[in-house]
Amino acid sequence: MKFSCLKSELVQVLQIAGRSIASKPQTPILSGIYLHADQDILEVQATDYEIGVILHLKAEVEHPGEIVVSGKYFYDVVRTLPDEEVVIEYDRSTEIVKICSGKSTFTLLSMKAVDFPKIHQMKEGKSFTVSSVVLKELIRRTIFSCATEESKPLFMGALLEVEGQKVRMVATNSHRLSFDEGKIENELEGICQYVIPKRILEEIQHILSSEIPENVEITCTHSEMSFNMERIYMTTRLIEGNYPEYRRAVPPEFSKRITLSTSAFLSAVSRVGLIARSSAYNTIKLMFNMGEVHIYSDNPVVGKAEETMRAEIEGDDIGIAFNASYLIDVLKILNSESFILELNDSLKPALIREPDNEDFLYVITPVRTKN
Amino acid sequence: MKFSCLKSELVQVLQIAGRSIASKPQTPILSGIYLHADQDILEVQATDYEIGVILHLKAEVEHPGEIVVSGKYFYDVVRTLPDEEVVIEYDRSTEIVKICSGKSTFTLLSMKAVDFPKIHQMKEGKSFTVSSVVLKELIRRTIFSCATEESKPLFMGALLEVEGQKVRMVATNSHRLSFDEGKIENELEGICQYVIPKRILEEIQHILSSEIPENVEITCTHSEMSFNMERIYMTTRLIEGNYPEYRRAVPPEFSKRITLSTSAFLSAVSRVGLIARSSAYNTIKLMFNMGEVHIYSDNPVVGKAEETMRAEIEGDDIGIAFNASYLIDVLKILNSESFILELNDSLKPALIREPDNEDFLYVITPVRTKN
Repeated sequence: MKFSCLKSELVQVLQIAGRSIASKPQTPILSGIYLHADQDILEVQATDYEIGVILHLKAEVEHPGEIVVSGKYFYDVVRTLPDEEVVIEYDRSTEIVKICSGKSTFTLLSMKAVDFPKIHQMKEGKSFTVSSVVLKELIRRTIFSCATEESKPLFMGALLEVEGQKVRMVATNSHRLSFDEGKIENELEGICQYVIPKRILEEIQHILSSEIPENVEITCTHSEMSFNMERIYMTTRLIEGNYPEYRRAVPPEFSKRITLSTSAFLSAVSRVGLIARSSAYNTIKLMFNMGEVHIYSDNPVVGKAEETMRAEIEGDDIGIAFNASYLIDVLKILNSESFILELNDSLKPALIREPDNEDFLYVITPVRTKN
Repeated sequence: MKFSCLKSELVQVLQIAGRSIASKPQTPILSGIYLHADQDILEVQATDYEIGVILHLKAEVEHPGEIVVSGKYFYDVVRTLPDEEVVIEYDRSTEIVKICSGKSTFTLLSMKAVDFPKIHQMKEGKSFTVSSVVLKELIRRTIFSCATEESKPLFMGALLEVEGQKVRMVATNSHRLSFDEGKIENELEGICQYVIPKRILEEIQHILSSEIPENVEITCTHSEMSFNMERIYMTTRLIEGNYPEYRRAVPPEFSKRITLSTSAFLSAVSRVGLIARSSAYNTIKLMFNMGEVHIYSDNPVVGKAEETMRAEIEGDDIGIAFNASYLIDVLKILNSESFILELNDSLKPALIREPDNEDFLYVITPVRTKN
């Protein structure tokens, strides 16, 4: 194998591929990056068995071939090369990869391409297309609600539900639930549900961070899902099991409806939450009456915090307590200047939503307090 | 006690004071910040017994007094307050500190001021004045050579030596040594030596990071040193023991003299060092001949790296090996476009210096290699 390519393009590709290599690989071959040069294209692959990525870049290929090199060292070496042109050559007799650029020459030991668990593009399964703008927003508005405890594997992923032209994402840790809805570019028959690991959703969010919209083609079977983006193809295993019926978590009606300024409430809750932070439940209390909300927290070993702000209250006075982080998390992702908090009583789940948008819902369970 | 002050000024002061609080305080009182309000000045103190800091800021003092509050919570609360005006009040009967700003009210538990190990400005000892520009440069050019192993307590500090109008700083870990010299603003009789903990030198460097030069008054006894800066007073315990005669580490003469471009050599050594990094001694080899230096490294489990660059060589051909980090560290702090490397043979200490500056010296011991 021998090819040359541009350093800057190779660095970009290796940066993305490197994020799919496990920090502690199960077997040595998984610490490697698979390179395949053929027909003026270099294909780069990386996987940790759970997620996998395929990337392509233009290359001048003199001799086609495939090899695996240490992902970490190959990236570190390429990143620091002095020239923009990089020549990479594999010597079959010594099993060594030579990397030349300017007056620098590196040789890296290689691994066998046949040992690498190659990723194949999915040929079967249901397919639909979604705009990167919609997909990024679905991810941003929900995945923070995923569980972090390994005891709830199903909740460590987010539910992707496709029905007709609609696509929905749901995430919960059983104390709070985020729901967001968007449209796909085509239409699917029936209703499909998939539970996607949080990690790949974070990767997709990272990759789609550019402002230029593109279409993402998603293909799924019961155990696997792929994301076909402009220059990147990613696959992931899906989490097995039946996701609970999330609609049951949304109360059908509320007796109280409060409208609050998003940014002012976020600042106030963040401040008052400082004092609650180190206590067991990170609890802050809200008391709504007389057109105002009193926000307070109390931590016997630190002190107290108290703040007041205007609130538009429809319904009776009420006091309720929440985990401060669960409030802060959702306030950070709201798009509207004001938001609506709907309540029944101090022990029943509450709902947070935007005034003119029915696509997004956040259900939050209150904390039971003594006084 | 009751006073008001500006939030932004208080935040700045607490940020600096917070860096002198130990992350794991020996006693609860050391997690506190001492506040003393009197005569339109708020004095703030923090200490971890090793280093201590005193800061002042303008305040409108209604009732003078002194208290101690949790450094961490006080800083976090003040930092997030909504308004620029902050009113702080201590209630002696409840032993609670009230912090008000805008519509926010915080109360923090307090600790007793009498329990705080107050820092007193040093009245005795030798004193000299040095420009912040000189002091910062002495620190920057030497402290990276300090030892990190706790087994060499004396080498975990840097030597400050004052003689007449000259001030010198020396740091070593016994494998490499940095020496830099500057001038003080006055003149001292005799020769004085102090071993200063690396940590306070890093603090001083951080504090003096602004571009505006100022004079720093340094006062020292055999066990203590203080730095009197414009708005900050810092004290530190000194490291006890006799610092070795560093002049003996500098070879009196050399048989070879090589001139190299600083930035080109730094880039080359950084690249070649990538391969050496994970081996036991992080060794890179240099071979000087025919107006060139060949830089190479070899790591049996990773691969090899090789690079060539121009070198002005006076003396016979020579091969020598160094710890790559020890070279990179010094190349980063050189001020000159080219530098001089002086050698005797492959096993004897080498010297690195700038062409037109006799104030700075770096001695580095080679690594013994098999081939």
